[in-house]
Amino acid sequence: MIRSWECPERVDVIEAALADRHQFRAPGPVRMGPIRQIHDEGYLAFLAEAWDRWRAEGEQGEAAMGLCWPTRRMNQAHVPRSLRGRLGYYGFAADCSITDGTWPATLTSAALAQSATEAVLAGARAAFALCRPPGHHATADQFGGYCYVNNAAVAAQQLRDAGLDRVAIVDVDYHHGNGTQDIFYQRDDVLYCSVHADPNDDFPYFLGHADERGDGIGVGFNLNEPLPRATGFDDWSAALERCLTRVEETDCQAMVVSLGVDTYVGDPISQFLLDHEDFTRMGRQLAAAGLPTVFVMEGGYAVGELGTNVVNVLDGFEAALDGC
Amino acid sequence: MIRSWECPERVDVIEAALADRHQFRAPGPVRMGPIRQIHDEGYLAFLAEAWDRWRAEGEQGEAAMGLCWPTRRMNQAHVPRSLRGRLGYYGFAADCSITDGTWPATLTSAALAQSATEAVLAGARAAFALCRPPGHHATADQFGGYCYVNNAAVAAQQLRDAGLDRVAIVDVDYHHGNGTQDIFYQRDDVLYCSVHADPNDDFPYFLGHADERGDGIGVGFNLNEPLPRATGFDDWSAALERCLTRVEETDCQAMVVSLGVDTYVGDPISQFLLDHEDFTRMGRQLAAAGLPTVFVMEGGYAVGELGTNVVNVLDGFEAALDGC
Repeated sequence: MIRSWECPERVDVIEAALADRHQFRAPGPVRMGPIRQIHDEGYLAFLAEAWDRWRAEGEQGEAAMGLCWPTRRMNQAHVPRSLRGRLGYYGFAADCSITDGTWPATLTSAALAQSATEAVLAGARAAFALCRPPGHHATADQFGGYCYVNNAAVAAQQLRDAGLDRVAIVDVDYHHGNGTQDIFYQRDDVLYCSVHADPNDDFPYFLGHADERGDGIGVGFNLNEPLPRATGFDDWSAALERCLTRVEETDCQAMVVSLGVDTYVGDPISQFLLDHEDFTRMGRQLAAAGLPTVFVMEGGYAVGELGTNVVNVLDGFEAALDGC
Repeated sequence: MIRSWECPERVDVIEAALADRHQFRAPGPVRMGPIRQIHDEGYLAFLAEAWDRWRAEGEQGEAAMGLCWPTRRMNQAHVPRSLRGRLGYYGFAADCSITDGTWPATLTSAALAQSATEAVLAGARAAFALCRPPGHHATADQFGGYCYVNNAAVAAQQLRDAGLDRVAIVDVDYHHGNGTQDIFYQRDDVLYCSVHADPNDDFPYFLGHADERGDGIGVGFNLNEPLPRATGFDDWSAALERCLTRVEETDCQAMVVSLGVDTYVGDPISQFLLDHEDFTRMGRQLAAAGLPTVFVMEGGYAVGELGTNVVNVLDGFEAALDGC
C-alpha cells in the first residue's frame, strides 16, 4: 500500500490549530436532496454500493480502483454492468480509490459544507467547513483527484435554493476545480472563478485553460486564471483580484471559497511559492469582497504546515472584518 | 512491483511449442512509414521519448504510468506539456506502463507483423507474427491494454498499400480490439470483425457493442459479436462464422487474424470456455475463408498453455489447407 497525500491527519492538524480561538460545531445530518441536485443518480448509487460490490465480487486489495477510462471516441452510451467497468465510467483519475470508509466520509464531508452554509444563511458573516475528502474535482458523475461529492457545488446550490440570485465560487486551490467548472459551465446563476496551476503542467491536465469561459447562457460566468509553476504571491494575488472583480461585476450575493492551501511553497506535490504570511493576506483580500462567505476545505498536503496556513487565511479574513 | 499478466515468458513458451515443426525467420528492420499511416505523429513522438523524459524529470518508480485521463466533457484541444499529462492524454487505461524496453519492443513487434505480411504478399498462404507487446487495443493516438502500436492495423494497411482492394481483420482475442475498430471505423477498405466478451462485463468496457457498425462510408464494415461470460465453443464458433460470412460478402482479398488465445477456459483473466481442441477447430474454420492470412499474436495469459493453444490454431489451419 502506498499512502495517499490526502490523509486523515490533514484534518487533525487543522482542527488542532483552530481549536484555540475558533468555535467548532458538529455538522447536522447530511441531506441528500441538495446532493442529488448536483450529482447524477446513477453516480451516487455507484458510490454508495461500490465497496460492497468490490467485496461481494471477491476482488482483492484494500481499495477499489478504475482500470480503464472512457476517453475520446469511446462509446459512452452504455454504463457497464461490471463494477470494474463502472469504476472507469464514473471516474477520470487513478489517484484515488474507494474503500470501506469512503462513502460515509464523503457524506460527512458534504454535511459539513451544508451546515456551514446554513450558518451563513442564518446570518453568520462566514463559516468554515473542515471537509475531508475534498470536492472540487468531482463532476456531476465522476470521481477523481481525491474527490467524490463536490462540497463547494452543493454549498453554492444550497445558497441559490435559499433565494440568493447569484452565487460565486472562488477556488484558490493549487489545482483547477474541474468538477466545479463542469457542473456550472452552462449556468449564469453560479459564477466559477479559479486561480490555479496551468493544466499544461499539472493535474487535472484537461480542464482549466483561460479560454474556457462558459457555454450557452453560462458564457462569461467561468473565469480561469492559470499560472505558471513558481508563481509567487504578487502574481497570484493579482489573479485573485481579477476573480474578485468579476464577482463584483456579476452582482454575486454570497461567496463559496474552495480553500486549498497547496499553493504553499512547501507543498510536496505543488509548485507555487506562497508562504505563511501570504495566507493571511489572502484572507484579507477575500474579506474585501464584502460577501457572506462559506469556506470549504479542499487540498493542501504539507501536513505539518496545514494548520498554520488555514488559520492564517481565516485570521486574515476576520481581521479585515474587524477593520484591522 | 506487481508483474503484468502480459509477461516476456509468453513469447518463449509459444516459440518453444512452435520450434518442432515450424520455420522461424527474424523480422526485417522496422519501417516507420506504414506505422505513421496508422498512428498520430505526436503520439509516436510521445512513445519514443516517454521513458527518457520520465527519467530526466527525476520521476521515481520502475515505469511511467498515467494518472488522469481526458474523459467526457474534458478539454482535449490542448496536449499537456507535462509528461504526466501526456501519459493520460495518450492513454486510456492504467493496466500498462512505459519503461526502458517498451519502445524498442514495440518497434520489434511491429517489425514482426510487417515481415509476416511481406511473406504473405510474396506468396505464402499464411504467416504468423509472434508479436509482443500485442497491438489491438492501441488506437491512432492512445496506448492501453498492454498495446502501443497496432500491429494488426499496420499489417492490414500494408496489404492495402500493396494493392489489395479490401482487407479483413478478424479478431478472435477474448477482449474487443477497440483500437483496431477505432482506426478503421470510417473506412470501407478494411473490414473489422471481432468475437469477444461483452464490454458490459470486460475490458475495454467502452467499445465493442453490437450496435457499433461503422461510420460514414464505413457503415457495415465493422462487425462486433459480443458474447456473455462462460460462452463455449459452439456459440463462439457460430459468432466467428457470422464474421467469416461478412468477410466473404465484402470480397476481402486477404485476412489479418488478431490471434488472442485468452478465450481458453484456463485463462486467468478471461471467462470463455474454449479448450485445447477448440483452437484446432478455430484454425480449420479460419482456413475455410480461403484467403491469404497474416496471424498477429495478441493476448493469452495462461502461460503454461499458450504454446499448445497457438500451435493448435496454426496446425488446424494447415491441416485444413492440406485437406485433412
